[in-house]
Amino acid sequence: MASHDIAEKHLATGIAASGPAPDLAAAAALLEMGDRLGVVAHLDSDSPLETGAVAAELDLPEAALVRYLDALESAGIAIREGEGRYRACPDFATVCHQAGYISWTMNANRPFIEHAREFFTDWEKASRTHLRDFREVAVSSQWMGSHAFYPAALDTIIDAKPRKVVDLGAGTCRLLIEVLDAVPGSTGVGLDFAADACRAAELAVAQAGMSERLTVLERSIQSVATDPQMLKDADVIHAGFVFHDMLPEEEDVCDEVLAKCRESLAPGGFLAITDAVPYLRNDRERRFSAAVSYYHGEFMRRRLQTEEQWVERLRAAGFSDVRAVTLAFPTGRLFLAHR
Amino acid sequence: MASHDIAEKHLATGIAASGPAPDLAAAAALLEMGDRLGVVAHLDSDSPLETGAVAAELDLPEAALVRYLDALESAGIAIREGEGRYRACPDFATVCHQAGYISWTMNANRPFIEHAREFFTDWEKASRTHLRDFREVAVSSQWMGSHAFYPAALDTIIDAKPRKVVDLGAGTCRLLIEVLDAVPGSTGVGLDFAADACRAAELAVAQAGMSERLTVLERSIQSVATDPQMLKDADVIHAGFVFHDMLPEEEDVCDEVLAKCRESLAPGGFLAITDAVPYLRNDRERRFSAAVSYYHGEFMRRRLQTEEQWVERLRAAGFSDVRAVTLAFPTGRLFLAHR
Repeated sequence: MASHDIAEKHLATGIAASGPAPDLAAAAALLEMGDRLGVVAHLDSDSPLETGAVAAELDLPEAALVRYLDALESAGIAIREGEGRYRACPDFATVCHQAGYISWTMNANRPFIEHAREFFTDWEKASRTHLRDFREVAVSSQWMGSHAFYPAALDTIIDAKPRKVVDLGAGTCRLLIEVLDAVPGSTGVGLDFAADACRAAELAVAQAGMSERLTVLERSIQSVATDPQMLKDADVIHAGFVFHDMLPEEEDVCDEVLAKCRESLAPGGFLAITDAVPYLRNDRERRFSAAVSYYHGEFMRRRLQTEEQWVERLRAAGFSDVRAVTLAFPTGRLFLAHR
Repeated sequence: MASHDIAEKHLATGIAASGPAPDLAAAAALLEMGDRLGVVAHLDSDSPLETGAVAAELDLPEAALVRYLDALESAGIAIREGEGRYRACPDFATVCHQAGYISWTMNANRPFIEHAREFFTDWEKASRTHLRDFREVAVSSQWMGSHAFYPAALDTIIDAKPRKVVDLGAGTCRLLIEVLDAVPGSTGVGLDFAADACRAAELAVAQAGMSERLTVLERSIQSVATDPQMLKDADVIHAGFVFHDMLPEEEDVCDEVLAKCRESLAPGGFLAITDAVPYLRNDRERRFSAAVSYYHGEFMRRRLQTEEQWVERLRAAGFSDVRAVTLAFPTGRLFLAHR
């Protein structure tokens, strides 16, 4: 057998072993780089990016921007329309979505990967020292959410045609702006404890021309337990991945916030909670579920609640009709609790 | 339509959009963490790890080690055999292999992702400041290579039943030890410029009981151009991902090393070069190829050679029979050049 025949024998098994890992890794790395450079925000499947204008806006050498976009083009992630004109590939949203999982798990939570030993031996010190970059958490979560949990909550809320919607942990008010845009005459309140998120939200609200309809409140979720005024007569209250931050230390506060949500809802209204449930064992979810659960339990010291615990907790808060909906986001559930 | 029905509608499309990204991300993160902790080296599909002994050896709290292994177990990556006894899942090698792509692209090359702007504007300074961690490059490359390029080269070399094998850029002499183990009476020379790699190689050679048959040389590949003595009468000379380090600055040296390889080979001998070729466009390879090519061109300032350029270069060095073999490693090629 000639030497090249021996070598070639390994091709098929090697390709099968790698599967889609090289593709996903490359896309995630190139998109993260583009996010840091500010280029991803300008990439769109429908309208082309002009390298001259974007290089000037981002203060990047245009030749370097072109080389980056040519790499994306060669990767099949961008399309070159002509000199200095590129647009994103048609499935760009899906490429970003998949990159979000890689980026969140491998990069946004990197302090846990690199410093696990220090968390094991001195958690107090490690948790003060090895902080996550919250912008990286937010960007990767948005990429993950775009197909995996966001559409389910958004559609459910819009379908209810709410007059008033409250988002607890609203971030940049992206969800509320989309709801108010889809439901004429509706109003919203977005609450977040992070000052920079609130400033970004105010800007986005103003740009959407919704300053009269949408109020941004810089406050903690916990504060709702003692001052629930902003919830009054809401038709929908939404909370995405925020309630677990109160567990286990502030379990009483958590339950009080849930009770206040129930009391404040307008007749026919509902609470929609998206959150992670721990250590699922089914084939689809178990691997990602283990990573999410382990990060939360070991490094963030959060106690994720099971589906049953959530349903029980919501019933204990006075909700009568409680449903858990399985989300595409592995280990994620949407809990819908009606008054 | 009830609110939970609306939400559930998104499940199937969301699952299709995510594909295997959550699984791959979770495995890569958990395995990288286990590598940093030293645990991965103890995980085997065939023989169980004892948590007491391993915790003592790695100086880790045993309870924390058990929690980590329980997370791997829940992820389906490890199997719990009993209290304090875990072994790796049967396809552990494949899980590591896939994680290698994520780890190399997203983490080992992270300085390029985070500091692209600085490389664009002051390459000299950035390339001195933002260095890659060579241990991370080596670990992730080994995981990638295990199924994608290593077996093709190894089998080809073993099949030739060489009396003498030389590996240029031998690292820890892993390849040479496997070859010498498979070919009774064969001898080897492993050359590497990195002192720590050579020390690790010497240790591995001694542990394999091959100190009499395998010589470790701490020298650069470039030095072979002027002193090719160690190549004399080799039946196989192997070089994995090292020749491109001489291009473009040391093109003459590269060609001189190739010529010396040809001159030194025993009759019937061959040179086996594994290297990356730039910016392939076929569906299987284009995305990873773009990331590899862009990293090398923009950030490492290496000029990868096309398949045609390699064949031409090897012919110019005097080789008569030159073949390029496609590897499972996307964008990788094995060049087999006979005297």
